[in-house]
Amino acid sequence: MNPAIRGVVRAALHQGIEVFGINRGYSGLISDDMAPMSSSSVSNIVQRGGTILKSDRCEAFKKPEVRSSAADILKARGIDALVVIGGDGSLTGAHLFQQETGIEVIGLPGTIDNDIFGTDDTIGFDTAVNTALEAIDRIRDTASSHERHFLVEVMGRASGFIAIHVGMAAGAEMILVPERAIEISRISEELAAARRAGTGSSGIIVVAEGPEPGLTYRLAEQLKEHGQDPRVCILGHIQRGGSPTGHDRVLATCMGAMAVSYLCAGYSDIMVGVRDGQIIDVPLEDVIRFRKGLDPTLLELALQVHR
Amino acid sequence: MNPAIRGVVRAALHQGIEVFGINRGYSGLISDDMAPMSSSSVSNIVQRGGTILKSDRCEAFKKPEVRSSAADILKARGIDALVVIGGDGSLTGAHLFQQETGIEVIGLPGTIDNDIFGTDDTIGFDTAVNTALEAIDRIRDTASSHERHFLVEVMGRASGFIAIHVGMAAGAEMILVPERAIEISRISEELAAARRAGTGSSGIIVVAEGPEPGLTYRLAEQLKEHGQDPRVCILGHIQRGGSPTGHDRVLATCMGAMAVSYLCAGYSDIMVGVRDGQIIDVPLEDVIRFRKGLDPTLLELALQVHR
Amino acid sequence: MNPAIRGVVRAALHQGIEVFGINRGYSGLISDDMAPMSSSSVSNIVQRGGTILKSDRCEAFKKPEVRSSAADILKARGIDALVVIGGDGSLTGAHLFQQETGIEVIGLPGTIDNDIFGTDDTIGFDTAVNTALEAIDRIRDTASSHERHFLVEVMGRASGFIAIHVGMAAGAEMILVPERAIEISRISEELAAARRAGTGSSGIIVVAEGPEPGLTYRLAEQLKEHGQDPRVCILGHIQRGGSPTGHDRVLATCMGAMAVSYLCAGYSDIMVGVRDGQIIDVPLEDVIRFRKGLDPTLLELALQVHR
Amino acid sequence: MNPAIRGVVRAALHQGIEVFGINRGYSGLISDDMAPMSSSSVSNIVQRGGTILKSDRCEAFKKPEVRSSAADILKARGIDALVVIGGDGSLTGAHLFQQETGIEVIGLPGTIDNDIFGTDDTIGFDTAVNTALEAIDRIRDTASSHERHFLVEVMGRASGFIAIHVGMAAGAEMILVPERAIEISRISEELAAARRAGTGSSGIIVVAEGPEPGLTYRLAEQLKEHGQDPRVCILGHIQRGGSPTGHDRVLATCMGAMAVSYLCAGYSDIMVGVRDGQIIDVPLEDVIRFRKGLDPTLLELALQVHR
Repeated sequence: MNPAIRGVVRAALHQGIEVFGINRGYSGLISDDMAPMSSSSVSNIVQRGGTILKSDRCEAFKKPEVRSSAADILKARGIDALVVIGGDGSLTGAHLFQQETGIEVIGLPGTIDNDIFGTDDTIGFDTAVNTALEAIDRIRDTASSHERHFLVEVMGRASGFIAIHVGMAAGAEMILVPERAIEISRISEELAAARRAGTGSSGIIVVAEGPEPGLTYRLAEQLKEHGQDPRVCILGHIQRGGSPTGHDRVLATCMGAMAVSYLCAGYSDIMVGVRDGQIIDVPLEDVIRFRKGLDPTLLELALQVHR
Repeated sequence: MNPAIRGVVRAALHQGIEVFGINRGYSGLISDDMAPMSSSSVSNIVQRGGTILKSDRCEAFKKPEVRSSAADILKARGIDALVVIGGDGSLTGAHLFQQETGIEVIGLPGTIDNDIFGTDDTIGFDTAVNTALEAIDRIRDTASSHERHFLVEVMGRASGFIAIHVGMAAGAEMILVPERAIEISRISEELAAARRAGTGSSGIIVVAEGPEPGLTYRLAEQLKEHGQDPRVCILGHIQRGGSPTGHDRVLATCMGAMAVSYLCAGYSDIMVGVRDGQIIDVPLEDVIRFRKGLDPTLLELALQVHR
Repeated sequence: MNPAIRGVVRAALHQGIEVFGINRGYSGLISDDMAPMSSSSVSNIVQRGGTILKSDRCEAFKKPEVRSSAADILKARGIDALVVIGGDGSLTGAHLFQQETGIEVIGLPGTIDNDIFGTDDTIGFDTAVNTALEAIDRIRDTASSHERHFLVEVMGRASGFIAIHVGMAAGAEMILVPERAIEISRISEELAAARRAGTGSSGIIVVAEGPEPGLTYRLAEQLKEHGQDPRVCILGHIQRGGSPTGHDRVLATCMGAMAVSYLCAGYSDIMVGVRDGQIIDVPLEDVIRFRKGLDPTLLELALQVHR
Repeated sequence: MNPAIRGVVRAALHQGIEVFGINRGYSGLISDDMAPMSSSSVSNIVQRGGTILKSDRCEAFKKPEVRSSAADILKARGIDALVVIGGDGSLTGAHLFQQETGIEVIGLPGTIDNDIFGTDDTIGFDTAVNTALEAIDRIRDTASSHERHFLVEVMGRASGFIAIHVGMAAGAEMILVPERAIEISRISEELAAARRAGTGSSGIIVVAEGPEPGLTYRLAEQLKEHGQDPRVCILGHIQRGGSPTGHDRVLATCMGAMAVSYLCAGYSDIMVGVRDGQIIDVPLEDVIRFRKGLDPTLLELALQVHR
């Protein structure tokens, strides 16, 4: 997030626009917890994980009357526009805020899950993929030395973006994503077949966490009933945080700077996205309404090279 | 390179095609140094830097008669097609080989410099950017603690792709690329102005290596004559090698698999590229003839947020 | 483990001694799965995680008659001595093997837990500490951005060595080790006090896994009953594997080479250890009989700077 | 350095002692640039490279009259004691300061070179070794793929501590240290012999930078005259900075806390060192007077396993 904050601040100051940083998201907005930012406020932060402005979930902002009083706070300070970085929930709040109060908003897609409609890429996704990958490269050392299979659960909520990229990059033997259900018996058969063929005494099976936690433990138990004995590793929160990758820093910097450009050009109620390598604007209404699906070609390709 | 090799091998075996691995590039081709590859030949290599098939410069392959006898070697083994991974030189050889001998060739863009026409991205570029970035993040710790400026020379030969990405991602104070000449006096003035403004007591200036080595040392001397005293750090070969990033592994795996798909579909004398996020085919003739330029928008954006 | 294998092989060859590598530990020993090793067998492995000789648990080796037939296998091959790398179980087997069969054995302490008597340090400990630390540095970014507490469970079985080192190095707010029981109510009070004092809105609590898995989840539930709401992160197998640190590579190389020196000097039934910075020999009998305790000074120091 | 600062601050506050942080070393001391430090001043810094108090060379502090006025500044603020972190130069200044002014001083050995008498280990050494190692692991990928030799110059001024540890840990084919001169012709012969034996087509030669920079380039030229053609890589400043390793963080935290314990116990004019795994006190006079030598056993061992 920090490179995005830096991009917004530097680009705005470059245009002669005053910038305030709001702490802890909507929680700080409704409690007027904000401060002016200078060029040096964002010095030496581009390499830091997390966010200097902190983050929080804010249930209260779901109420129209709270959003209305938040608008009053901004108006009292003479603030005309809001840049929001976050996932589905944050962007929904941003859209409603614009519709109801007329304050201009620009959204930036900030989530490691890459499950936001209208953009090919989100801020944090590449970093999360690489972090998960490093962990799996280590697990593979153990899997290979001990000739065992490991079920490695990666993040991604209801979508398999992280799983498919991590699985492909890790050379996983199998990738299980919510978008494509596989029967336990088939998984077990493939593992047994690989073992018979002499190519599968050890391996990594990447599992998307799915809608509810703990599914991977249940999967391991079901596989045990089919005669397999995989170990389980839940990557969990170690996939968050950490110094962002070059790709994420460039993406976030560009998106942050473009948010300012769009504002200056009179755009509002949009999200900055990236499609086919180009920065684009996407109506927030569409972002909220539609669901992004996995690229089926990538899915097929992944299956092809992993056997 | 290893994930690309793995992608080619696994995809070919999946199609029922036999695959040979040629050692040390064209050097191994002309000396018939090759061996059949199985699925397990490429097990557990996706995370390794370098290449299991080794690499070499081969001056002899520039002669038509050598290429002709190389074709005989392949024909004697019943090999119909060649997949070549490399930069300008390797791809030029591939194109001539196809033109003269009729053996089908598919090229894959493998260079950290990302200076190949017809593709937005090359295998190894993202890894090199992240490796350089880690080094610069460390140098920044010293620059900041000692309040000094550092000139950091990154690779890229005659092009500034690595420099512009690394510079942007590193939050560099200045990025010097061959595509945009700046006078020494202006560089010096900007450093002095930043120091006066209190924002520039320390900083990183990323310098593309340019056409000949050692330019950065000369630049440091010229800046000394203008009253600046920056230190110099040449990243050099530490930018090569190392475990590839997730992005590079996915890119290389896809490109490797697509090389096989293109061959099966009857394509030849092309390079597999990526444009606007899609895998494409580019005639090798174009790849060799044209020169890729830096994206001017990215260049402008970089300048905007770095002051 | 690989640097230790390399140290043994290179030192032995240097002395003109022939070396065999046994695959999968005692499992390979009892099934005569071994092969001669040359200098190049251990080239380019010093940086690799895991072990090129693979690893396995071998229940059968606990039976005297199996050990006896294993000795016959070695004698038939003309092998006089055995170097064993592993933890408590492996070293116990090594001691019994020597006692019963007269074949010379030297043990090397190879476990990430550092819980082996007679040595200050074990091969793998420093790497595991640094790997856990990187994960916690990332978790801290999230803890700090979201102002939450995290319970991070690290490995170490019944001992707190990893926990105390990781906790100290990570600047953890609290370190819970089996060696020092703390009541839930006191943990909860300290967290509440820190929050009141304004210094503890977020933080890391490092928890040693203890004798049985899952204790950390139970701890989180108990803390919830006391009004705290920490998140849980189990590092698990990601602490194993990965490229060894410089410290571990030097330690393992020295220990491997010294194992050969001790053998040449007529020592047997000992483990190579390190105490006060010096390589020493420790009778395997003592290694097995005694239990190593945490340094109380380190424990006190850790508590002192973490509040 | 940051974990040491944190250790001093937290331990002092724990003892009820007030602490000031002096910016930019002796430069800040003589210009009264210092500020009180609280527990939260050192929160979340344990993982950061560089130093939050900045660093500077201060020529003026070499004059007795400047040291005398510095003592007046401390006395005016009611400061009784000074903890100094640094290398030879800083510790010499500390000793003179104590001798002349009577203000109590405790030194901490802070240098990546590990060349300070009286201590087995210095703050920053382990981090620098691991950073250099990562770079060399990458270079090895290229050396191995291209079948070339690389001369890699590591830091260490007139001593070979970094070189010997890095070389051993990297599995270097040869380690050149100032403590042991080798003739060019012998180096060349060994490389040629290894190539003939088929084990040395590629490799890493670690070179200590020695008393003056650029020696490695000259060495490469001399080797060229003997028919070898190694590439050169100067690691330079990338060895500094970066997040400290677990070992360094624990060492620095312990040393920082012990500095406070020694002060409370009435010690002064000493450096906190570590010998044989124990924290010790060393008279600053000895630290300055004597020169630390390389462990000859380690040197021999290194040579033994690297052929």
